[in-house]
Amino acid sequence: MTLDALRELARAKLRAAGLAGDHADAVAETMVAGERDGCASHGIYRLLVADRSIRAGVVVPDAVPQVSEPKAGLVRVDGGGGFAQLAFERGMPLLVDKARANGIAALALNNVVHFAALWPEVEALAEQGLVALAFTPSHAWVAPAGGTKPVFGTNPIAFGWPRPGREPFVFDFATSAVARGEIELHRREGRAIPDDWGYDADGRSTNDATAVLDGAMRTFGGHKGSALAAMVELLAGPLIADMTSAESIAADKGRGGSPIGGELILAIDPAGFLGDAVRAHLERAEAMFAAIEGQSARLPSQRRYAARARSLAEGVTIPAALYADIMAIGV
Amino acid sequence: MTLDALRELARAKLRAAGLAGDHADAVAETMVAGERDGCASHGIYRLLVADRSIRAGVVVPDAVPQVSEPKAGLVRVDGGGGFAQLAFERGMPLLVDKARANGIAALALNNVVHFAALWPEVEALAEQGLVALAFTPSHAWVAPAGGTKPVFGTNPIAFGWPRPGREPFVFDFATSAVARGEIELHRREGRAIPDDWGYDADGRSTNDATAVLDGAMRTFGGHKGSALAAMVELLAGPLIADMTSAESIAADKGRGGSPIGGELILAIDPAGFLGDAVRAHLERAEAMFAAIEGQSARLPSQRRYAARARSLAEGVTIPAALYADIMAIGV
Repeated sequence: MTLDALRELARAKLRAAGLAGDHADAVAETMVAGERDGCASHGIYRLLVADRSIRAGVVVPDAVPQVSEPKAGLVRVDGGGGFAQLAFERGMPLLVDKARANGIAALALNNVVHFAALWPEVEALAEQGLVALAFTPSHAWVAPAGGTKPVFGTNPIAFGWPRPGREPFVFDFATSAVARGEIELHRREGRAIPDDWGYDADGRSTNDATAVLDGAMRTFGGHKGSALAAMVELLAGPLIADMTSAESIAADKGRGGSPIGGELILAIDPAGFLGDAVRAHLERAEAMFAAIEGQSARLPSQRRYAARARSLAEGVTIPAALYADIMAIGV
Repeated sequence: MTLDALRELARAKLRAAGLAGDHADAVAETMVAGERDGCASHGIYRLLVADRSIRAGVVVPDAVPQVSEPKAGLVRVDGGGGFAQLAFERGMPLLVDKARANGIAALALNNVVHFAALWPEVEALAEQGLVALAFTPSHAWVAPAGGTKPVFGTNPIAFGWPRPGREPFVFDFATSAVARGEIELHRREGRAIPDDWGYDADGRSTNDATAVLDGAMRTFGGHKGSALAAMVELLAGPLIADMTSAESIAADKGRGGSPIGGELILAIDPAGFLGDAVRAHLERAEAMFAAIEGQSARLPSQRRYAARARSLAEGVTIPAALYADIMAIGV
């Protein structure tokens, strides 16, 4: 399928699932971007996830995001219980304006349902020439280092850096040892997991994927990853008057819906500190990227951009079983 | 020794080493704080490091920090080649004012010599009720994930979160697998290091501490830690018109001095998003801390605060050999 055809399909199916038109368009865009960039788990497959959240009543399908400006450097969008994508779209122009005016600004998305990666947000800001950071909690599935009971979500951190004339430097990773989807994949396939991915409900290390899904995952990088996971909870939870991962999973009441809560996005304008010398200093960043790539180490987003180039030229292939499931949405 | 006696000693010896009075006072403060908190490697031992930097001509001992305001949300302090501590002291009040006025603000320290931990900065801001993040590159000693040649510094990230009525939640860690001082300690003692700490100059894993010090250290947490190390380079290097770790070690010209360059500090006022509800939401953060400590996992700064309580009550003990070396400074 071409990306345009995929976009039309996603929009139509999200509308058929009951989502308002503006939400459907915004959500379709991130699914197409995921599929285009070879991120199957954040691609068009998410139509099924979105459909499930809508049917379970977890998301408000026609929520109207409310934008406000609590301070000169702050933007808040109350998503009204809708998906996060439209809330971000509505808040981003003001975030960009404030970052350019003040040098630095922050955007809080509140009361949104989150099921996508964070890289679309930081990439969009980097394409505007800004440096961006994004954080969001999820559901409490991850134990702190030194413990075995869930406190944190998979709590991703994303970062974007503008590169004139090329795709931005972007990373986006969970602070859990692995993605939760990776463990679910092992469960579905009946495969053992390494014993350092998590704990069973009794706090013992285990190779059993189901036991970890019912117990607790570990953070990446030991106590350092655990500290970062705590930071994500704080920044995109209490700091913006939104839920921690523990509160989000409690609010879900076992419906198995996507996490509900907030997201914090920071934007810094390089021209703030650099003035007219932005170009010269961004060139110095390029020298660092060259030093990384020159020893055949990959930049974080490299694989994604390679997939993007292929998809733009050749379109994407949707597995027949997934396509059939998608076609059944709203029928 | 009491902490007051230690402070007097540090001030006197820094002056004897040639440091101007205002710098000596600011630098002494962080050394006493390190010793007080049981961080021996960032404690009074650093008098020897500072003395070496002064004698090697790496630091400008009487630099006068210049404060400016490039944007409504930005503060810059040009440290004039002096130690970072006084530059931070001079910039912090304006950073606090701007964070309170705009909700978020950033402080860049430029052209400073850095040899201390970052936690004193974020802790000071958290004690003012602000949420703080700090980043600084160092010397290029660390290879990116997938490579074996040094590009990054040990590139610490520090975070501070205010806790009403108690010490702030603070972490401060290197994005390298271990602290460089840890490897130096192994070298001095002739002990082997684990083979996942770094590479020799030919890019091979090794147990030889000297070979890693002459080769490259690894980042913590694989490609995720490597991505964070790159972010620190970008945020506290090109974004603020200051040196990357590769540029800093090149500028050192083999003198073995402390890293010269910049530091970026972000401050967010919880009242910006929370208004009158700060207290209620900080209580929700306390619930998360309780969930961590309730399963006997430690909070990042817990050990440091315990040492602090002991030092405040009982004073600190300085090893005789170190004391003798300190007494020889400036004689």
